[in-house]
Amino acid sequence: MGEFVTTQKVRFGHVDPAGIAYFPRIFDYIHEAFEELWDAHVGARYYELIGTRRVGFPLVRSEVEFKAPLRFGDEPRVAVTCFHLGRSSLGLRYRYTLGARLCVDARMTTACVDLATMKSMAMPAEFRSKFEALIAPPLAPAAEQRRSE
Amino acid sequence: MGEFVTTQKVRFGHVDPAGIAYFPRIFDYIHEAFEELWDAHVGARYYELIGTRRVGFPLVRSEVEFKAPLRFGDEPRVAVTCFHLGRSSLGLRYRYTLGARLCVDARMTTACVDLATMKSMAMPAEFRSKFEALIAPPLAPAAEQRRSE
Amino acid sequence: MGEFVTTQKVRFGHVDPAGIAYFPRIFDYIHEAFEELWDAHVGARYYELIGTRRVGFPLVRSEVEFKAPLRFGDEPRVAVTCFHLGRSSLGLRYRYTLGARLCVDARMTTACVDLATMKSMAMPAEFRSKFEALIAPPLAPAAEQRRSE
Amino acid sequence: MGEFVTTQKVRFGHVDPAGIAYFPRIFDYIHEAFEELWDAHVGARYYELIGTRRVGFPLVRSEVEFKAPLRFGDEPRVAVTCFHLGRSSLGLRYRYTLGARLCVDARMTTACVDLATMKSMAMPAEFRSKFEALIAPPLAPAAEQRRSE
Repeated sequence: MGEFVTTQKVRFGHVDPAGIAYFPRIFDYIHEAFEELWDAHVGARYYELIGTRRVGFPLVRSEVEFKAPLRFGDEPRVAVTCFHLGRSSLGLRYRYTLGARLCVDARMTTACVDLATMKSMAMPAEFRSKFEALIAPPLAPAAEQRRSE
Repeated sequence: MGEFVTTQKVRFGHVDPAGIAYFPRIFDYIHEAFEELWDAHVGARYYELIGTRRVGFPLVRSEVEFKAPLRFGDEPRVAVTCFHLGRSSLGLRYRYTLGARLCVDARMTTACVDLATMKSMAMPAEFRSKFEALIAPPLAPAAEQRRSE
Repeated sequence: MGEFVTTQKVRFGHVDPAGIAYFPRIFDYIHEAFEELWDAHVGARYYELIGTRRVGFPLVRSEVEFKAPLRFGDEPRVAVTCFHLGRSSLGLRYRYTLGARLCVDARMTTACVDLATMKSMAMPAEFRSKFEALIAPPLAPAAEQRRSE
Repeated sequence: MGEFVTTQKVRFGHVDPAGIAYFPRIFDYIHEAFEELWDAHVGARYYELIGTRRVGFPLVRSEVEFKAPLRFGDEPRVAVTCFHLGRSSLGLRYRYTLGARLCVDARMTTACVDLATMKSMAMPAEFRSKFEALIAPPLAPAAEQRRSE
Protein backbone atom coordinates (compact mmCIF):
# COMPACT_ATOMS: atom_id res chain seq x y z
CA MET A 1 0.00 0.00 0.00
CA GLY A 2 1.15 3.49 -0.78
CA GLU A 3 3.48 2.44 -3.57
CA PHE A 4 3.40 0.77 -6.96
CA VAL A 5 6.11 -1.82 -7.45
CA THR A 6 7.48 -3.41 -10.60
CA THR A 7 10.71 -5.03 -11.74
CA GLN A 8 12.86 -4.17 -14.73
CA LYS A 9 15.84 -5.80 -16.40
CA VAL A 10 19.13 -4.32 -17.52
CA ARG A 11 19.62 -5.65 -21.06
CA PHE A 12 22.74 -5.97 -23.17
CA GLY A 13 21.77 -3.02 -25.34
CA HIS A 14 21.42 -0.75 -22.29
CA VAL A 15 24.95 -0.95 -20.95
CA ASP A 16 28.01 1.01 -21.88
CA PRO A 17 31.56 -0.24 -22.35
CA ALA A 18 32.00 -0.32 -18.55
CA GLY A 19 29.04 -2.75 -18.26
CA ILE A 20 26.95 -0.09 -16.50
CA ALA A 21 23.55 1.14 -17.67
CA TYR A 22 24.10 4.20 -19.88
CA PHE A 23 22.23 6.87 -17.90
CA PRO A 24 19.78 8.00 -20.61
CA ARG A 25 18.52 4.41 -20.52
CA ILE A 26 17.57 4.90 -16.90
CA PHE A 27 15.17 7.60 -18.05
CA ASP A 28 13.74 5.06 -20.48
CA TYR A 29 13.23 2.70 -17.54
CA ILE A 30 11.48 5.45 -15.63
CA HIS A 31 9.11 6.06 -18.53
CA GLU A 32 8.44 2.34 -18.86
CA ALA A 33 7.65 2.13 -15.14
CA PHE A 34 5.27 5.07 -15.64
CA GLU A 35 3.52 3.25 -18.50
CA GLU A 36 3.35 0.08 -16.39
CA LEU A 37 1.81 2.06 -13.56
CA TRP A 38 -0.94 3.29 -15.88
CA ASP A 39 -1.69 -0.16 -17.18
CA ALA A 40 -1.48 -2.04 -13.88
CA HIS A 41 -2.34 0.48 -11.14
CA VAL A 42 -4.44 3.25 -12.69
CA GLY A 43 -6.23 0.77 -14.93
CA ALA A 44 -6.18 2.96 -18.02
CA ARG A 45 -3.94 1.72 -20.78
CA TYR A 46 -1.37 4.39 -21.42
CA TYR A 47 -1.61 4.07 -25.18
CA GLU A 48 -5.36 4.67 -25.04
CA LEU A 49 -4.81 7.65 -22.79
CA ILE A 50 -2.49 9.20 -25.35
CA GLY A 51 -4.08 7.94 -28.54
CA THR A 52 -7.81 8.00 -27.78
CA ARG A 53 -8.40 10.33 -24.84
CA ARG A 54 -5.62 12.64 -26.04
CA VAL A 55 -4.35 13.31 -22.53
CA GLY A 56 -0.59 13.46 -22.03
CA PHE A 57 1.92 13.99 -19.25
CA PRO A 58 4.95 15.88 -20.55
CA LEU A 59 7.85 16.16 -18.17
CA VAL A 60 8.34 19.56 -16.54
CA ARG A 61 11.16 18.89 -14.15
CA SER A 62 13.36 15.98 -13.04
CA GLU A 63 15.73 15.61 -10.11
CA VAL A 64 17.65 12.37 -9.99
CA GLU A 65 20.31 10.98 -7.68
CA PHE A 66 22.41 8.18 -9.15
CA LYS A 67 23.73 6.42 -6.04
CA ALA A 68 24.95 3.10 -7.35
CA PRO A 69 25.29 1.70 -10.86
CA LEU A 70 22.87 -0.71 -12.50
CA ARG A 71 24.76 -3.41 -14.34
CA PHE A 72 24.06 -5.80 -17.19
CA GLY A 73 21.77 -8.56 -15.92
CA ASP A 74 20.54 -6.67 -12.86
CA GLU A 75 16.81 -6.81 -12.21
CA PRO A 76 16.12 -3.77 -10.04
CA ARG A 77 12.91 -3.37 -8.06
CA VAL A 78 11.20 -0.05 -8.78
CA ALA A 79 8.89 1.48 -6.17
CA VAL A 80 6.78 4.45 -7.28
CA THR A 81 5.17 6.89 -4.86
CA CYS A 82 3.48 10.26 -5.33
CA PHE A 83 5.19 13.27 -3.75
CA HIS A 84 3.06 15.98 -5.30
CA LEU A 85 -0.46 16.12 -6.69
CA GLY A 86 -1.68 19.51 -7.82
CA ARG A 87 -4.63 20.46 -10.00
CA SER A 88 -2.77 19.46 -13.16
CA SER A 89 0.71 18.63 -11.95
CA LEU A 90 1.84 15.22 -10.83
CA GLY A 91 5.10 14.46 -9.02
CA LEU A 92 6.15 10.82 -8.91
CA ARG A 93 9.18 9.42 -7.15
CA TYR A 94 10.88 6.30 -8.50
CA ARG A 95 13.26 4.40 -6.25
CA TYR A 96 15.39 1.70 -7.90
CA THR A 97 16.83 -0.83 -5.47
CA LEU A 98 18.94 -3.99 -5.68
CA GLY A 99 18.29 -5.74 -2.40
CA ALA A 100 18.81 -3.15 0.33
CA ARG A 101 20.91 -0.87 -1.87
CA LEU A 102 19.24 2.25 -3.31
CA CYS A 103 20.64 2.77 -6.82
CA VAL A 104 18.53 5.53 -8.34
CA ASP A 105 16.20 7.98 -6.63
CA ALA A 106 14.25 10.06 -9.15
CA ARG A 107 11.61 12.75 -8.74
CA MET A 108 9.77 13.45 -11.96
CA THR A 109 7.21 16.23 -12.21
CA THR A 110 4.81 16.12 -15.14
CA ALA A 111 1.88 18.27 -16.20
CA CYS A 112 -1.45 16.84 -17.29
CA VAL A 113 -2.14 18.36 -20.72
CA ASP A 114 -4.83 18.20 -23.36
CA LEU A 115 -2.87 16.95 -26.37
CA ALA A 116 -5.23 18.71 -28.80
CA THR A 117 -4.34 22.15 -27.44
CA MET A 118 -1.16 21.34 -25.46
CA LYS A 119 -2.66 23.35 -22.56
CA SER A 120 -2.60 22.06 -19.01
CA MET A 121 -5.88 20.60 -17.76
CA ALA A 122 -7.13 19.35 -14.40
CA MET A 123 -6.18 15.75 -13.73
CA PRO A 124 -9.36 13.71 -14.38
CA ALA A 125 -10.95 12.61 -11.09
CA GLU A 126 -10.80 8.87 -11.79
CA PHE A 127 -7.04 9.11 -12.19
CA ARG A 128 -6.54 11.49 -9.26
CA SER A 129 -7.81 8.95 -6.75
CA LYS A 130 -5.32 6.40 -8.04
CA PHE A 131 -2.41 8.77 -7.53
CA GLU A 132 -3.72 9.78 -4.09
CA ALA A 133 -3.34 6.12 -3.13
CA LEU A 134 0.37 6.43 -3.88
CA ILE A 135 0.97 9.43 -1.66
CA ALA A 136 3.50 8.52 1.02
CA PRO A 137 1.96 8.90 4.50
CA PRO A 138 2.92 12.18 6.20
CA LEU A 139 5.77 11.83 8.63
CA ALA A 140 4.84 11.92 12.30
CA PRO A 141 5.40 15.44 13.77
CA ALA A 142 8.47 14.32 15.70
CA ALA A 143 10.06 12.79 12.62
CA GLU A 144 9.20 15.86 10.57
CA GLN A 145 10.77 18.11 13.13
CA ARG A 146 13.91 16.03 13.22
CA ARG A 147 14.21 16.24 9.44
CA SER A 148 14.02 20.01 9.36
CA GLU A 149 16.54 20.62 12.07
CA MET B 1 33.63 33.27 -23.82
CA GLY B 2 33.00 31.14 -20.82
CA GLU B 3 30.80 28.66 -22.66
CA PHE B 4 31.09 25.83 -25.14
CA VAL B 5 28.48 25.94 -27.88
CA THR B 6 27.31 23.28 -30.29
CA THR B 7 24.17 22.50 -32.30
CA GLN B 8 22.13 19.32 -32.34
CA LYS B 9 19.29 18.04 -34.48
CA VAL B 10 16.01 16.46 -33.48
CA ARG B 11 15.70 13.39 -35.70
CA PHE B 12 12.69 11.33 -36.72
CA GLY B 13 13.65 8.49 -34.40
CA HIS B 14 13.80 10.85 -31.41
CA VAL B 15 10.23 12.07 -31.39
CA ASP B 16 7.14 10.56 -29.87
CA PRO B 17 3.67 10.31 -31.37
CA ALA B 18 3.06 13.97 -30.48
CA GLY B 19 6.09 14.99 -32.59
CA ILE B 20 8.02 16.06 -29.48
CA ALA B 21 11.42 14.73 -28.46
CA TYR B 22 10.86 11.77 -26.13
CA PHE B 23 12.55 13.02 -22.93
CA PRO B 24 15.07 10.19 -22.46
CA ARG B 25 16.45 11.29 -25.84
CA ILE B 26 17.23 14.68 -24.38
CA PHE B 27 19.58 12.94 -21.96
CA ASP B 28 21.20 11.30 -25.00
CA TYR B 29 21.66 14.78 -26.48
CA ILE B 30 23.24 15.95 -23.25
CA HIS B 31 25.70 13.08 -23.32
CA GLU B 32 26.52 13.77 -26.95
CA ALA B 33 27.15 17.43 -26.15
CA PHE B 34 29.45 16.25 -23.34
CA GLU B 35 31.38 14.03 -25.79
CA GLU B 36 31.55 16.90 -28.27
CA LEU B 37 32.90 19.18 -25.55
CA TRP B 38 35.71 16.71 -24.85
CA ASP B 39 36.63 16.39 -28.50
CA ALA B 40 36.34 20.06 -29.46
CA HIS B 41 36.98 22.05 -26.28
CA VAL B 42 39.07 19.91 -23.93
CA GLY B 43 41.03 18.46 -26.81
CA ALA B 44 41.05 14.90 -25.51
CA ARG B 45 38.95 12.51 -27.54
CA TYR B 46 36.33 11.11 -25.24
CA TYR B 47 36.74 7.57 -26.53
CA GLU B 48 40.46 7.66 -25.76
CA LEU B 49 39.72 9.03 -22.32
CA ILE B 50 37.47 6.07 -21.60
CA GLY B 51 39.23 3.40 -23.58
CA THR B 52 42.92 4.24 -23.18
CA ARG B 53 43.30 6.49 -20.13
CA ARG B 54 40.50 4.61 -18.35
CA VAL B 55 39.07 7.77 -16.83
CA GLY B 56 35.29 8.07 -16.69
CA PHE B 57 32.64 10.54 -15.55
CA PRO B 58 29.62 8.69 -14.21
CA LEU B 59 26.60 10.81 -13.44
CA VAL B 60 25.94 11.46 -9.76
CA ARG B 61 23.04 13.86 -9.90
CA SER B 62 20.90 15.61 -12.49
CA GLU B 63 18.42 18.45 -12.20
CA VAL B 64 16.60 19.37 -15.36
CA GLU B 65 13.89 21.88 -16.20
CA PHE B 66 11.95 21.14 -19.39
CA LYS B 67 10.58 24.53 -20.33
CA ALA B 68 9.51 24.11 -23.93
CA PRO B 69 9.37 21.08 -26.20
CA LEU B 70 11.93 20.22 -28.85
CA ARG B 71 10.20 19.10 -32.03
CA PHE B 72 11.12 17.00 -35.05
CA GLY B 73 13.43 19.04 -37.28
CA ASP B 74 14.47 21.52 -34.58
CA GLU B 75 18.17 22.32 -34.40
CA PRO B 76 18.67 23.63 -30.86
CA ARG B 77 21.76 25.55 -29.81
CA VAL B 78 23.38 24.04 -26.74
CA ALA B 79 25.53 26.21 -24.48
CA VAL B 80 27.59 24.44 -21.82
CA THR B 81 29.01 26.17 -18.76
CA CYS B 82 30.60 24.87 -15.57
CA PHE B 83 28.72 25.57 -12.33
CA HIS B 84 30.83 23.42 -10.02
CA LEU B 85 34.41 22.17 -10.10
CA GLY B 86 35.58 20.21 -7.06
CA ARG B 87 38.57 17.94 -6.61
CA SER B 88 36.89 15.13 -8.49
CA SER B 89 33.40 16.39 -9.11
CA LEU B 90 32.32 18.34 -12.16
CA GLY B 91 29.01 20.15 -12.55
CA LEU B 92 28.07 21.20 -16.06
CA ARG B 93 25.02 23.16 -17.09
CA TYR B 94 23.48 22.64 -20.53
CA ARG B 95 21.07 25.22 -21.87
CA TYR B 96 19.11 24.29 -25.01
CA THR B 97 17.66 27.24 -26.87
CA LEU B 98 15.66 27.80 -30.06
CA GLY B 99 16.22 31.45 -30.86
CA ALA B 100 15.51 33.36 -27.66
CA ARG B 101 13.43 30.57 -26.13
CA LEU B 102 15.05 28.42 -23.45
CA CYS B 103 13.79 24.84 -23.93
CA VAL B 104 15.87 22.72 -21.57
CA ASP B 105 18.05 23.81 -18.65
CA ALA B 106 20.03 20.89 -17.22
CA ARG B 107 22.56 20.67 -14.41
CA MET B 108 24.52 17.44 -14.51
CA THR B 109 27.00 16.55 -11.77
CA THR B 110 29.51 13.84 -12.56
CA ALA B 111 32.42 12.35 -10.63
CA CYS B 112 35.85 11.79 -12.14
CA VAL B 113 36.64 8.10 -11.56
CA ASP B 114 39.44 5.70 -12.29
CA LEU B 115 37.64 3.06 -14.38
CA ALA B 116 40.04 0.34 -13.24
CA THR B 117 38.98 0.71 -9.59
CA MET B 118 35.75 2.73 -9.99
CA LYS B 119 37.05 5.03 -7.21
CA SER B 120 36.90 8.78 -7.52
CA MET B 121 40.15 10.50 -8.47
CA ALA B 122 41.30 14.09 -8.72
CA MET B 123 40.45 15.67 -12.04
CA PRO B 124 43.72 15.68 -14.06
CA ALA B 125 45.20 19.22 -14.20
CA GLU B 126 45.21 19.51 -17.99
CA PHE B 127 41.46 18.95 -18.02
CA ARG B 128 40.74 21.12 -14.99
CA SER B 129 41.98 24.26 -16.71
CA LYS B 130 39.65 23.61 -19.62
CA PHE B 131 36.63 23.37 -17.33
CA GLU B 132 37.75 26.46 -15.40
CA ALA B 133 37.45 28.34 -18.68
CA LEU B 134 33.76 27.40 -18.73
CA ILE B 135 32.97 28.74 -15.28
CA ALA B 136 30.40 31.50 -15.56
CA PRO B 137 31.81 34.79 -14.22
CA PRO B 138 30.71 35.57 -10.65
CA LEU B 139 27.85 38.01 -10.45
CA ALA B 140 28.70 41.54 -9.34
CA PRO B 141 27.92 42.08 -5.62
CA ALA B 142 24.88 44.22 -6.39
CA ALA B 143 23.44 41.65 -8.74
CA GLU B 144 24.16 38.87 -6.24
CA GLN B 145 22.40 40.80 -3.53
CA ARG B 146 19.39 41.43 -5.70
CA ARG B 147 19.14 37.71 -6.50
CA SER B 148 19.12 36.66 -2.89
CA GLU B 149 16.48 39.10 -1.76
CA MET C 1 7.58 -27.77 -30.04
CA GLY C 2 10.49 -26.71 -32.12
CA GLU C 3 10.10 -23.02 -31.29
CA PHE C 4 10.73 -20.64 -28.43
CA VAL C 5 7.89 -18.21 -27.80
CA THR C 6 7.79 -14.95 -25.90
CA THR C 7 5.74 -11.77 -25.93
CA GLN C 8 6.92 -8.18 -26.18
CA LYS C 9 5.25 -4.81 -25.81
CA VAL C 10 5.40 -1.75 -28.03
CA ARG C 11 6.08 1.14 -25.65
CA PHE C 12 5.52 4.87 -26.04
CA GLY C 13 9.23 5.52 -26.54
CA HIS C 14 9.40 3.03 -29.41
CA VAL C 15 6.92 4.63 -31.78
CA ASP C 16 7.39 7.36 -34.32
CA PRO C 17 5.10 10.30 -35.10
CA ALA C 18 2.85 7.96 -37.09
CA GLY C 19 2.33 5.77 -33.99
CA ILE C 20 4.27 2.90 -35.60
CA ALA C 21 7.32 1.22 -34.09
CA TYR C 22 10.41 3.00 -35.44
CA PHE C 23 12.14 0.14 -37.30
CA PRO C 24 15.51 0.22 -35.48
CA ARG C 25 13.48 -0.55 -32.34
CA ILE C 26 12.36 -3.79 -33.95
CA PHE C 27 16.01 -4.84 -34.02
CA ASP C 28 16.14 -4.02 -30.31
CA TYR C 29 13.13 -6.31 -29.82
CA ILE C 30 14.91 -9.05 -31.74
CA HIS C 31 17.97 -8.75 -29.53
CA GLU C 32 15.81 -8.80 -26.40
CA ALA C 33 14.06 -11.95 -27.65
CA PHE C 34 17.53 -13.46 -28.21
CA GLU C 35 18.54 -12.60 -24.62
CA GLU C 36 15.25 -14.03 -23.35
CA LEU C 37 15.87 -17.22 -25.30
CA TRP C 38 19.26 -17.63 -23.60
CA ASP C 39 17.81 -17.06 -20.14
CA ALA C 40 14.64 -19.12 -20.54
CA HIS C 41 15.38 -21.78 -23.17
CA VAL C 42 19.15 -22.36 -23.25
CA GLY C 43 19.39 -21.93 -19.49
CA ALA C 44 22.55 -19.85 -19.56
CA ARG C 45 22.06 -16.26 -18.53
CA TYR C 46 23.13 -14.12 -21.44
CA TYR C 47 24.98 -11.65 -19.28
CA GLU C 48 27.08 -14.45 -17.78
CA LEU C 49 27.76 -15.78 -21.25
CA ILE C 50 29.14 -12.41 -22.32
CA GLY C 51 30.65 -11.27 -19.04
CA THR C 52 32.01 -14.46 -17.50
CA ARG C 53 32.40 -17.05 -20.25
CA ARG C 54 33.40 -14.35 -22.74
CA VAL C 55 31.44 -15.92 -25.57
CA GLY C 56 29.56 -13.59 -27.90
CA PHE C 57 27.31 -13.79 -30.94
CA PRO C 58 27.94 -10.82 -33.22
CA LEU C 59 25.53 -10.44 -36.11
CA VAL C 60 26.88 -11.40 -39.52
CA ARG C 61 23.83 -11.01 -41.70
CA SER C 62 20.18 -10.06 -41.36
CA GLU C 63 17.26 -10.42 -43.75
CA VAL C 64 14.01 -8.96 -42.57
CA GLU C 65 10.57 -8.58 -44.11
CA PHE C 66 8.37 -5.91 -42.54
CA LYS C 67 4.89 -7.06 -43.51
CA ALA C 68 2.64 -5.09 -41.19
CA PRO C 69 3.33 -2.31 -38.69
CA LEU C 70 3.60 -2.78 -34.95
CA ARG C 71 1.75 0.01 -33.16
CA PHE C 72 1.89 1.62 -29.74
CA GLY C 73 0.32 -0.75 -27.24
CA ASP C 74 0.62 -3.88 -29.39
CA GLU C 75 1.89 -6.99 -27.65
CA PRO C 76 3.24 -9.15 -30.45
CA ARG C 77 3.97 -12.84 -30.02
CA VAL C 78 7.50 -13.74 -31.10
CA ALA C 79 8.30 -17.29 -32.21
CA VAL C 80 11.96 -18.18 -32.64
CA THR C 81 13.18 -21.15 -34.67
CA CYS C 82 16.61 -22.19 -35.90
CA PHE C 83 17.12 -22.24 -39.67
CA HIS C 84 20.88 -22.84 -39.69
CA LEU C 85 23.32 -24.38 -37.26
CA GLY C 86 26.92 -24.64 -38.44
CA ARG C 87 30.10 -25.24 -36.49
CA SER C 88 30.17 -21.68 -35.22
CA SER C 89 27.34 -19.99 -37.07
CA LEU C 90 23.79 -19.80 -35.83
CA GLY C 91 20.80 -18.68 -37.88
CA LEU C 92 17.66 -17.83 -35.97
CA ARG C 93 14.32 -16.82 -37.43
CA TYR C 94 12.03 -14.49 -35.50
CA ARG C 95 8.38 -14.25 -36.51
CA TYR C 96 6.34 -11.46 -34.95
CA THR C 97 2.60 -12.00 -35.10
CA LEU C 98 -0.51 -10.17 -33.89
CA GLY C 99 -3.21 -12.84 -33.92
CA ALA C 100 -3.01 -14.51 -37.33
CA ARG C 101 -1.21 -11.59 -38.96
CA LEU C 102 2.55 -11.94 -39.57
CA CYS C 103 4.12 -8.52 -38.96
CA VAL C 104 7.87 -9.10 -39.05
CA ASP C 105 9.79 -12.10 -40.37
CA ALA C 106 13.50 -11.84 -39.57
CA ARG C 107 16.42 -14.15 -40.26
CA MET C 108 19.46 -13.26 -38.22
CA THR C 109 22.76 -15.06 -38.70
CA THR C 110 25.32 -14.71 -35.94
CA ALA C 111 28.78 -16.18 -35.38
CA CYS C 112 29.88 -17.72 -32.11
CA VAL C 113 33.09 -15.90 -31.13
CA ASP C 114 35.61 -15.95 -28.33
CA LEU C 115 35.38 -12.37 -27.05
CA ALA C 116 39.00 -12.46 -25.84
CA THR C 117 40.33 -12.97 -29.37
CA MET C 118 37.24 -12.03 -31.44
CA LYS C 119 37.85 -15.23 -33.45
CA SER C 120 35.04 -17.61 -34.31
CA MET C 121 34.84 -20.74 -32.18
CA ALA C 122 32.77 -23.92 -32.28
CA MET C 123 29.42 -23.54 -30.59
CA PRO C 124 29.76 -25.24 -27.18
CA ALA C 125 27.98 -28.62 -27.15
CA GLU C 126 25.64 -27.82 -24.27
CA PHE C 127 24.25 -24.87 -26.23
CA ARG C 128 24.17 -26.67 -29.58
CA SER C 129 21.64 -29.21 -28.35
CA LYS C 130 19.34 -26.40 -27.25
CA PHE C 131 19.42 -24.79 -30.68
CA GLU C 132 18.94 -28.19 -32.38
CA ALA C 133 15.65 -28.38 -30.49
CA LEU C 134 14.54 -25.23 -32.31
CA ILE C 135 15.24 -26.52 -35.81
CA ALA C 136 12.05 -26.53 -37.82
CA PRO C 137 11.23 -30.05 -39.04
CA PRO C 138 12.30 -30.66 -42.64
CA LEU C 139 9.51 -30.26 -45.12
CA ALA C 140 8.12 -33.43 -46.64
CA PRO C 141 9.65 -34.14 -50.10
CA ALA C 142 6.49 -33.10 -51.94
CA ALA C 143 6.27 -29.81 -50.12
CA GLU C 144 9.96 -29.19 -50.68
CA GLN C 145 9.55 -29.81 -54.36
CA ARG C 146 6.62 -27.47 -54.61
CA ARG C 147 8.63 -24.71 -52.94
CA SER C 148 11.50 -24.94 -55.36
CA GLU C 149 9.36 -24.80 -58.49
CA MET D 1 28.77 11.09 -58.87
CA GLY D 2 26.01 8.55 -58.52
CA GLU D 3 26.20 8.42 -54.73
CA PHE D 4 25.36 10.51 -51.69
CA VAL D 5 28.08 10.56 -49.07
CA THR D 6 28.00 11.54 -45.43
CA THR D 7 29.95 10.74 -42.26
CA GLN D 8 28.66 9.50 -38.94
CA LYS D 9 30.20 9.02 -35.52
CA VAL D 10 30.06 6.07 -33.17
CA ARG D 11 29.18 7.58 -29.78
CA PHE D 12 29.63 6.25 -26.28
CA GLY D 13 25.94 5.48 -25.93
CA HIS D 14 25.97 3.36 -29.08
CA VAL D 15 28.50 0.73 -28.07
CA ASP D 16 28.06 -2.44 -26.13
CA PRO D 17 30.29 -3.88 -23.40
CA ALA D 18 32.71 -5.11 -26.08
CA GLY D 19 33.15 -1.52 -27.37
CA ILE D 20 31.37 -2.39 -30.62
CA ALA D 21 28.30 -0.60 -31.98
CA TYR D 22 25.23 -2.48 -30.76
CA PHE D 23 23.67 -3.58 -34.06
CA PRO D 24 20.22 -1.96 -33.64
CA ARG D 25 22.13 1.35 -33.49
CA ILE D 26 23.43 0.68 -36.98
CA PHE D 27 19.82 0.78 -38.17
CA ASP D 28 19.51 4.13 -36.41
CA TYR D 29 22.56 5.31 -38.35
CA ILE D 30 20.97 4.11 -41.59
CA HIS D 31 17.80 6.06 -40.84
CA GLU D 32 19.82 9.16 -39.98
CA ALA D 33 21.73 8.86 -43.26
CA PHE D 34 18.34 8.60 -45.01
CA GLU D 35 17.15 11.80 -43.29
CA GLU D 36 20.41 13.51 -44.20
CA LEU D 37 19.99 12.46 -47.81
CA TRP D 38 16.55 14.09 -47.90
CA ASP D 39 17.83 17.32 -46.39
CA ALA D 40 21.08 17.58 -48.34
CA HIS D 41 20.54 15.72 -51.62
CA VAL D 42 16.80 15.69 -52.36
CA GLY D 43 16.39 19.19 -50.96
CA ALA D 44 13.15 18.46 -49.13
CA ARG D 45 13.48 18.52 -45.35
CA TYR D 46 12.48 15.12 -44.12
CA TYR D 47 10.45 16.50 -41.25
CA GLU D 48 8.39 18.61 -43.65
CA LEU D 49 7.90 15.61 -45.88
CA ILE D 50 6.45 13.64 -42.96
CA GLY D 51 4.77 16.45 -41.07
CA THR D 52 3.46 18.74 -43.79
CA ARG D 53 3.26 16.77 -47.03
CA ARG D 54 2.28 13.63 -45.12
CA VAL D 55 4.40 11.36 -47.30
CA GLY D 56 6.29 8.55 -45.59
CA PHE D 57 8.69 5.74 -46.48
CA PRO D 58 8.05 2.75 -44.23
CA LEU D 59 10.57 -0.06 -44.52
CA VAL D 60 9.39 -3.13 -46.40
CA ARG D 61 12.53 -5.23 -46.48
CA SER D 62 16.13 -5.05 -45.33
CA GLU D 63 19.15 -7.17 -46.16
CA VAL D 64 22.30 -6.31 -44.30
CA GLU D 65 25.80 -7.78 -44.21
CA PHE D 66 27.83 -6.91 -41.12
CA LYS D 67 31.39 -7.42 -42.34
CA ALA D 68 33.48 -5.64 -39.73
CA PRO D 69 32.60 -3.99 -36.43
CA LEU D 70 32.18 -0.26 -35.90
CA ARG D 71 33.86 0.79 -32.67
CA PHE D 72 33.53 3.67 -30.22
CA GLY D 73 35.08 6.76 -31.79
CA ASP D 74 34.96 5.49 -35.38
CA GLU D 75 33.71 7.95 -37.97
CA PRO D 76 32.56 5.78 -40.85
CA ARG D 77 31.92 7.14 -44.32
CA VAL D 78 28.48 6.23 -45.62
CA ALA D 79 27.84 6.06 -49.36
CA VAL D 80 24.23 5.78 -50.50
CA THR D 81 23.19 4.57 -53.94
CA CYS D 82 19.85 3.54 -55.42
CA PHE D 83 19.50 -0.08 -56.49
CA HIS D 84 15.78 -0.07 -57.23
CA LEU D 85 13.28 2.60 -58.17
CA GLY D 86 9.75 1.40 -58.88
CA ARG D 87 6.49 3.35 -59.10
CA SER D 88 6.26 3.62 -55.33
CA SER D 89 9.11 1.48 -54.07
CA LEU D 90 12.60 2.74 -53.40
CA GLY D 91 15.62 0.57 -52.73
CA LEU D 92 18.67 2.29 -51.28
CA ARG D 93 22.03 0.72 -50.55
CA TYR D 94 24.17 2.04 -47.70
CA ARG D 95 27.84 1.12 -47.59
CA TYR D 96 29.72 1.95 -44.39
CA THR D 97 33.48 2.07 -44.79
CA LEU D 98 36.48 2.85 -42.60
CA GLY D 99 39.24 3.61 -45.05
CA ALA D 100 39.26 0.76 -47.55
CA ARG D 101 37.44 -1.64 -45.25
CA LEU D 102 33.73 -2.25 -45.90
CA CYS D 103 32.01 -2.62 -42.52
CA VAL D 104 28.29 -2.68 -43.26
CA ASP D 105 26.53 -3.22 -46.57
CA ALA D 106 22.78 -2.64 -46.27
CA ARG D 107 19.97 -2.77 -48.81
CA MET D 108 16.81 -1.15 -47.53
CA THR D 109 13.59 -1.23 -49.54
CA THR D 110 10.92 1.25 -48.60
CA ALA D 111 7.47 2.06 -50.01
CA CYS D 112 6.29 5.59 -50.67
CA VAL D 113 2.98 5.94 -48.80
CA ASP D 114 0.35 8.58 -48.24
CA LEU D 115 0.41 8.88 -44.44
CA ALA D 116 -3.24 9.94 -44.34
CA THR D 117 -4.42 6.64 -45.82
CA MET D 118 -1.28 4.50 -45.35
CA LYS D 119 -1.70 3.37 -48.98
CA SER D 120 1.22 3.27 -51.37
CA MET D 121 1.42 6.15 -53.82
CA ALA D 122 3.60 6.98 -56.83
CA MET D 123 6.87 8.61 -55.87
CA PRO D 124 6.44 12.35 -56.63
CA ALA D 125 8.35 13.31 -59.80
CA GLU D 126 10.54 15.96 -58.18
CA PHE D 127 11.90 13.31 -55.79
CA ARG D 128 12.16 10.57 -58.41
CA SER D 129 14.73 12.50 -60.42
CA LYS D 130 16.89 12.90 -57.31
CA PHE D 131 16.91 9.16 -56.69
CA GLU D 132 17.56 8.45 -60.37
CA ALA D 133 20.77 10.42 -59.92
CA LEU D 134 21.85 7.87 -57.32
CA ILE D 135 21.32 4.83 -59.51
CA ALA D 136 24.61 3.03 -59.96
CA PRO D 137 25.59 3.01 -63.63
CA PRO D 138 24.57 -0.20 -65.42
CA LEU D 139 27.33 -2.72 -65.78
CA ALA D 140 28.83 -3.11 -69.21
CA PRO D 141 27.11 -5.95 -71.15
CA ALA D 142 30.03 -8.28 -70.68
CA ALA D 143 30.11 -7.70 -66.93
CA GLU D 144 26.33 -8.08 -66.73
CA GLN D 145 26.48 -11.34 -68.57
CA ARG D 146 29.20 -12.65 -66.35
CA ARG D 147 27.10 -11.82 -63.26
CA SER D 148 24.06 -13.69 -64.43
CA GLU D 149 25.89 -16.86 -65.39
